[in-house]
Amino acid sequence: MTAAQLTLVQIDNYGPWTVTPEPRREMDLQTLQSRLFADLAQYIGNRGGYVFFTRFDNMVAVTNGLDRRDHDLLQESVGNRFPVTVSLGVGVDEVPIEALESATRRVQAAGSAQSSDRSEAFAGEFRDAAGDEDVHIAHFDVNDATGKYTDRMNEFDSFINIEHGYASLMKYMREEHGALSFFVGGDNVIAVCPDLAHDDYMGAIDHVADDADVQLKVGVGSGATPHDAGYAAKHALEDCRYEGTLVEFA
Amino acid sequence: MTAAQLTLVQIDNYGPWTVTPEPRREMDLQTLQSRLFADLAQYIGNRGGYVFFTRFDNMVAVTNGLDRRDHDLLQESVGNRFPVTVSLGVGVDEVPIEALESATRRVQAAGSAQSSDRSEAFAGEFRDAAGDEDVHIAHFDVNDATGKYTDRMNEFDSFINIEHGYASLMKYMREEHGALSFFVGGDNVIAVCPDLAHDDYMGAIDHVADDADVQLKVGVGSGATPHDAGYAAKHALEDCRYEGTLVEFA
Amino acid sequence: MTAAQLTLVQIDNYGPWTVTPEPRREMDLQTLQSRLFADLAQYIGNRGGYVFFTRFDNMVAVTNGLDRRDHDLLQESVGNRFPVTVSLGVGVDEVPIEALESATRRVQAAGSAQSSDRSEAFAGEFRDAAGDEDVHIAHFDVNDATGKYTDRMNEFDSFINIEHGYASLMKYMREEHGALSFFVGGDNVIAVCPDLAHDDYMGAIDHVADDADVQLKVGVGSGATPHDAGYAAKHALEDCRYEGTLVEFA
Amino acid sequence: MTAAQLTLVQIDNYGPWTVTPEPRREMDLQTLQSRLFADLAQYIGNRGGYVFFTRFDNMVAVTNGLDRRDHDLLQESVGNRFPVTVSLGVGVDEVPIEALESATRRVQAAGSAQSSDRSEAFAGEFRDAAGDEDVHIAHFDVNDATGKYTDRMNEFDSFINIEHGYASLMKYMREEHGALSFFVGGDNVIAVCPDLAHDDYMGAIDHVADDADVQLKVGVGSGATPHDAGYAAKHALEDCRYEGTLVEFA
Repeated sequence: MTAAQLTLVQIDNYGPWTVTPEPRREMDLQTLQSRLFADLAQYIGNRGGYVFFTRFDNMVAVTNGLDRRDHDLLQESVGNRFPVTVSLGVGVDEVPIEALESATRRVQAAGSAQSSDRSEAFAGEFRDAAGDEDVHIAHFDVNDATGKYTDRMNEFDSFINIEHGYASLMKYMREEHGALSFFVGGDNVIAVCPDLAHDDYMGAIDHVADDADVQLKVGVGSGATPHDAGYAAKHALEDCRYEGTLVEFA
Repeated sequence: MTAAQLTLVQIDNYGPWTVTPEPRREMDLQTLQSRLFADLAQYIGNRGGYVFFTRFDNMVAVTNGLDRRDHDLLQESVGNRFPVTVSLGVGVDEVPIEALESATRRVQAAGSAQSSDRSEAFAGEFRDAAGDEDVHIAHFDVNDATGKYTDRMNEFDSFINIEHGYASLMKYMREEHGALSFFVGGDNVIAVCPDLAHDDYMGAIDHVADDADVQLKVGVGSGATPHDAGYAAKHALEDCRYEGTLVEFA
Repeated sequence: MTAAQLTLVQIDNYGPWTVTPEPRREMDLQTLQSRLFADLAQYIGNRGGYVFFTRFDNMVAVTNGLDRRDHDLLQESVGNRFPVTVSLGVGVDEVPIEALESATRRVQAAGSAQSSDRSEAFAGEFRDAAGDEDVHIAHFDVNDATGKYTDRMNEFDSFINIEHGYASLMKYMREEHGALSFFVGGDNVIAVCPDLAHDDYMGAIDHVADDADVQLKVGVGSGATPHDAGYAAKHALEDCRYEGTLVEFA
Repeated sequence: MTAAQLTLVQIDNYGPWTVTPEPRREMDLQTLQSRLFADLAQYIGNRGGYVFFTRFDNMVAVTNGLDRRDHDLLQESVGNRFPVTVSLGVGVDEVPIEALESATRRVQAAGSAQSSDRSEAFAGEFRDAAGDEDVHIAHFDVNDATGKYTDRMNEFDSFINIEHGYASLMKYMREEHGALSFFVGGDNVIAVCPDLAHDDYMGAIDHVADDADVQLKVGVGSGATPHDAGYAAKHALEDCRYEGTLVEFA
């Protein structure tokens, strides 16, 4: 049974910090944000988790396999090495959006994202046991994105197309299934899903083809951790490539 | 007169590399991508330019103030420190999308994004002189995003709203004005624009309010470099905040 | 009983790589080396271990608490994100130099540091159980280094003094006790030691005062991991500061 | 005529910060220090300068080619992205140690390295013109270090040997010539020198062979910037390798 553990990582009082005492150089902010994300990707990733940059000041992680102590240490280490601190909320649920809802509510309960009083809040529940079917990851990409877009259009128009497909997918998967879909670069989208069937994924692909005129394919995997599930999904996506199919399960 | 210099940074043969000999760990790829972007943000940013992560394997930079030698060294330094190399194309035009079109065509002419034969291609034209009105930057954000979204909704639904507003804005600005709009985290979008009037920006804000139900405001600045223009735009956006207005020019 | 687990991290074929096809920019090499070290410090450090930069192309880590799988993943992740790969050797012994001797021999047995045939070699033995006295860490610093050196001399002469004290200490501790002492910045030296007595440390401090005219003090801790032992040592060193003593055990 | 521009980069009030409110995790400090150094290496390095990690909390840079504005921006950018700030002092002299003496005195005049009152101090003089002989760089390495040490001894004993040779060289070059020698990893030492003759370098090599039983060779270059001089020195060192000589000038 699916039991996704979702963590919200929210930078404390970040908006005000970026303009105090004067607006800070934009490229310094971009550097800070992307390096913080990179460090989370390493820390969470080498414990079997996944993290997505989302809005950078708010990042969403799937953290099955990471316990309270792992989160504690992450928070301490960020505070030791960055000029900002982070608050953490953790939730567990069969449906990813519900887990994130709990996680977010825990952070919100500790104070506003723009409150100077809140610093390094941390509350959550954790998945104790680890089941082989705890996490479901779907790895989507765009059919022949290089041939259709990258090698043919200017980069911004390529980006608009990919982005348009992503916007359509993210909304559909969230509304229909409570799944969370994240753009991860290139033409790739990774979704954290409940336990869905072949037809559910086919439905999503059809929807995006109709709605945004973007042709997706998807590999799906499950596992005890996001990495296990995601790695299986990547292999399944390779199968799509070789077989010419649109949906493959690991 | 506007003369935006746009650089396309494209990782060479990245797609195949990510799955050779086996799919690589997703969080290592995320780390690599975001650190490459961070390094570009530092290098380009401390020379007065701006770079946007776009799709990470393809990044778009506004590089007024950086000459051929600066680009050469950037390419060499990336090759010395990362397991991947980058190709660069540079174009100059009054309309940003046209400059990017030239930049992209130069990279495409050197070979496919997924060709193992192309490595560290580099071609471009450069803006010699520097005029005070060469670059126009518009810095948009969402009115009270913290109160309306971040402190109230779960993070994914906040993200869907912000993303939806961004998708609407990016498309409108590109189609109406040949401007390039990039999400830069939080509730912020930075657009590289031709020389536009107050009503043009008001038109964009109205469109997004109608189309996506997201209320934006914008500060606009111009300068010899993206940093100069963007820094002025940030101050203008602060003016919007204090004055309660929707469009301010520096 | 002490049972230090030592890991040698050696960059594969690094010397030749730095001059192929032409000498690479020195500052790019410095960046690469220090970032690789930083990543090891995070990975090993947040699992309770310690790593020292040593010669940068060869780094020495105390890895009690990290098993074979942790080392495997470290090696894979470095290979995914850097233009170089690393070989790893691991050894366990009551005397740190003996553990490193085994660790080094395992890497050497796989091929020369400058062989293009050796890549990602990995061999070792691991400490299974974890005892509270497995690791002994001594944290030395220089008495009033700021007042005597930093605020008074030019930085190079300050450095020569600190360096001179370090050279004297490292040699003494290695020869007398088989302990490994590493300069970690500022006026700090961290030593991985066998189980030593108060007088042994007093002997080292006296030796350095005589030999190099540098006045050290030291805090000593022990634990199941380097972090546990080192953290206790830091607190003991704080005790020296408050008490005005030269040797304190946690 | 030589005119080396030396910059001292000193972290403000770092010692107290590392133990406030409690001692911080050592591996976080190591990460912070080495990443700060890496960023300086990129910033200074891609402007033609060299920076050395020295004691990490105090770093020494050769900054011919970087003006006041470059230093200003460096200081601002560090403050935006790290939890610590840096003070900068700059000096120019024919003899490197004299330039560093001036640079250090300027930082010391602004307050103690452990004063909470001093933050982002910056004072200095700059080399206006750029002459082809402004900077002299000598790049030393150890003859057959891999064969004699790395592939044969345990890593700590290799390190002791290299370190011993370095300690001997740094002291000799400073006392005899006012030159500053820095270990840069592996078996490499880079020295910033006044204008020295072949016999001066031969004298240094002989001294180290006698004093520390370590056989060095050296390539020497000069140029308008450290990179120009250092790159020529690297090529000269390659010449030593091919010719079997001990001292080569570019």
